[in-house]
Amino acid sequence: MTNSKIIYLDNNATTKVDEDVLEEMLPYFSKNYGNPSSIYEFGGRNSLAIQEAREKVKDFFGAKSSKEILFTASGSESANTAIRGVLSIDRSRNHIITTKVEHPCVLNLYKQLEKEGYDVTYIGVNSVGELNKDELFDAITEKTALVSCMYANNETGTIFPVEEIAQMVKSKNKQTKVFVDAVQAAGKIKLDVQNTDIDMMGISGHKFHAPKGIGALYIKSSTLISPLIVGGHQENGRRAGTENVPFIIGLASAAQKANDALNYESTTVKRLRDKLETALLSKIYNARLNSAAQNRVPNTTNIGFEYVEGELILLSMNDYGICASSGSACTSGSLDPSHVLKAMGIPFTALHGSIRFSLSRYTTEEEIDYTIEKMPIIIEKLTKISPFQKELNELKQRKGII
Amino acid sequence: MTNSKIIYLDNNATTKVDEDVLEEMLPYFSKNYGNPSSIYEFGGRNSLAIQEAREKVKDFFGAKSSKEILFTASGSESANTAIRGVLSIDRSRNHIITTKVEHPCVLNLYKQLEKEGYDVTYIGVNSVGELNKDELFDAITEKTALVSCMYANNETGTIFPVEEIAQMVKSKNKQTKVFVDAVQAAGKIKLDVQNTDIDMMGISGHKFHAPKGIGALYIKSSTLISPLIVGGHQENGRRAGTENVPFIIGLASAAQKANDALNYESTTVKRLRDKLETALLSKIYNARLNSAAQNRVPNTTNIGFEYVEGELILLSMNDYGICASSGSACTSGSLDPSHVLKAMGIPFTALHGSIRFSLSRYTTEEEIDYTIEKMPIIIEKLTKISPFQKELNELKQRKGII
Repeated sequence: MTNSKIIYLDNNATTKVDEDVLEEMLPYFSKNYGNPSSIYEFGGRNSLAIQEAREKVKDFFGAKSSKEILFTASGSESANTAIRGVLSIDRSRNHIITTKVEHPCVLNLYKQLEKEGYDVTYIGVNSVGELNKDELFDAITEKTALVSCMYANNETGTIFPVEEIAQMVKSKNKQTKVFVDAVQAAGKIKLDVQNTDIDMMGISGHKFHAPKGIGALYIKSSTLISPLIVGGHQENGRRAGTENVPFIIGLASAAQKANDALNYESTTVKRLRDKLETALLSKIYNARLNSAAQNRVPNTTNIGFEYVEGELILLSMNDYGICASSGSACTSGSLDPSHVLKAMGIPFTALHGSIRFSLSRYTTEEEIDYTIEKMPIIIEKLTKISPFQKELNELKQRKGII
Repeated sequence: MTNSKIIYLDNNATTKVDEDVLEEMLPYFSKNYGNPSSIYEFGGRNSLAIQEAREKVKDFFGAKSSKEILFTASGSESANTAIRGVLSIDRSRNHIITTKVEHPCVLNLYKQLEKEGYDVTYIGVNSVGELNKDELFDAITEKTALVSCMYANNETGTIFPVEEIAQMVKSKNKQTKVFVDAVQAAGKIKLDVQNTDIDMMGISGHKFHAPKGIGALYIKSSTLISPLIVGGHQENGRRAGTENVPFIIGLASAAQKANDALNYESTTVKRLRDKLETALLSKIYNARLNSAAQNRVPNTTNIGFEYVEGELILLSMNDYGICASSGSACTSGSLDPSHVLKAMGIPFTALHGSIRFSLSRYTTEEEIDYTIEKMPIIIEKLTKISPFQKELNELKQRKGII
């Protein structure tokens, strides 16, 4: 049974491009296609359009100046630019601190930097995914070049107190730079870098209804980086390559719309998320909430279905047209359980059957009701064929079901 | 006087997105927006769409396998990925050979690599822009890690014999890698890497009617590179970041259309270019052809207007709605004369007044006729206010005009 209707609950993997955003981009493909660097008006006016977009993205970050905004082609490029960019400016320090639950894109870069001679400390989290701040504070030394911490976790939605962390870092070592991967926070909670100690913050457009292939990086004016892509003078010499004018326009438009929708996000989207979460936990006896962190982005819930295989759940959901995921899309294909849930100490019994549901402002009540209706059917069917019947019976007994 | 009609003769700076290409991309923004890495069909089918696109781009390069094709976000990223990618695999060699007339994007990277300890040899060209092959051959030593040579020059259109050069390189040092910047050749002449010694070749979509913000890199299967952007598993672990599905589809579509139009390019586009070139040279006494190289891409001509300032010419052309440029868009804003024309030994008198006209398959006969009509008016006006009247008179005498 394949369902032609799609219930898209995987907005932390990617989002639909907002149709107004697409509309705003369209004229820049085949009509206003001049090179922004060109001397003639047909090109130069695109440079002005980029400048306007940069102002909007500055506002989205809550930055002081649009000169602090760099356009990139992805969240990964933002992170690579920020991390390699500051490290190559000051080679006298070789210690980096990050967390065990960063996005794979960032973690893999640190694995690579370890091979290149950097010493990396990975900070742990508690059982709901909250960062061990004391551990982080203790790890800072005079050799610490960089502290890199995500804003919201892509798998659990847990929000880290990045402003407080940045302040802690600077109180112990003013020379240490702070990079925040805000890819999963952008568009879900308000960003406001201006009066913080955060040096750099990266975002990715396709997580908040701009297209895939555009990102941005905030770099505090006092922070120097060397470019990742060397070449032309674009982006103030910090990123070579002819500007992707339509996507820059699209990113700015999506950022503005996302900011306008933040209230909707924290009320309606949150209500739908909570409704889904509560219903699944009450209707499915072997369901457990993987993150009950106090601070969570409003759109994400991560639920473990004990003694059931995650991939089977996702494939059954696919048959009903429901899209969700078991971890980062960037690691799919791998059968290893989520490094995030492992760091939280989620029991082995739930680790493999954990599903992330992530909503957006396009998610409807009907879609949530449909999911609430279908998930118990899916899980019941798979639970019946689980090889862990003894353990499932014990679970039922503990929960007083039998 | 501003003209609302645009005569776009700056297709080496950027091109209009082909409307069919745009059409093909559109469904991937707000409709088929799933993450290609996702397990469910709504995402996974985009992975298949990318695979189909990769096949088309493989054909465009004339490569053996689609595994040899890497999608990037620009020609600059392709070059940075190729160059840094191979250099970091083998650190035992620190010598690089390139040409004096490479694109600024590539030259600036070599300036940076010199700072990082690499020894770079820059090979010169003759008066029509042809490469000094003997000089290149002599420069190859056992320390040579990389030879990097453009396919067609962006300013003059001169084509370098890259296949022959690659063969020369390998005959002297098999370990030396060869990178070809084909940004200005792609879509103008047939690429065919398969039976050559070229290890890597980079292209940029927006030079052949795909959007700005997408590029590709051919990497021969036997050639190893380390990724520039480290993170997720995308692009076979060689470039992290969620795939820009619409632009990948667009690049493939534009590549296919460009290949289909190669015959039109070498007949009609060439005829229009030659018509423009011949007319300007015959109608304007202080015009000189800056590149009469035997091998030239069919769309480009570079004409020096002696004793006249290039920027003034471009601004006057802008008043007539004619778009062209004096060099690479990536260096505009700088008042330095073109490094390409300087390397060719173009006389100082023409250096500052040199204009590149670059056509496309969208250029019409009417547009060329209009330009042939207006350019003499523009140049005559500016020649009259030139401070070099004595020299202009001598030039007239030499040409037998007075």
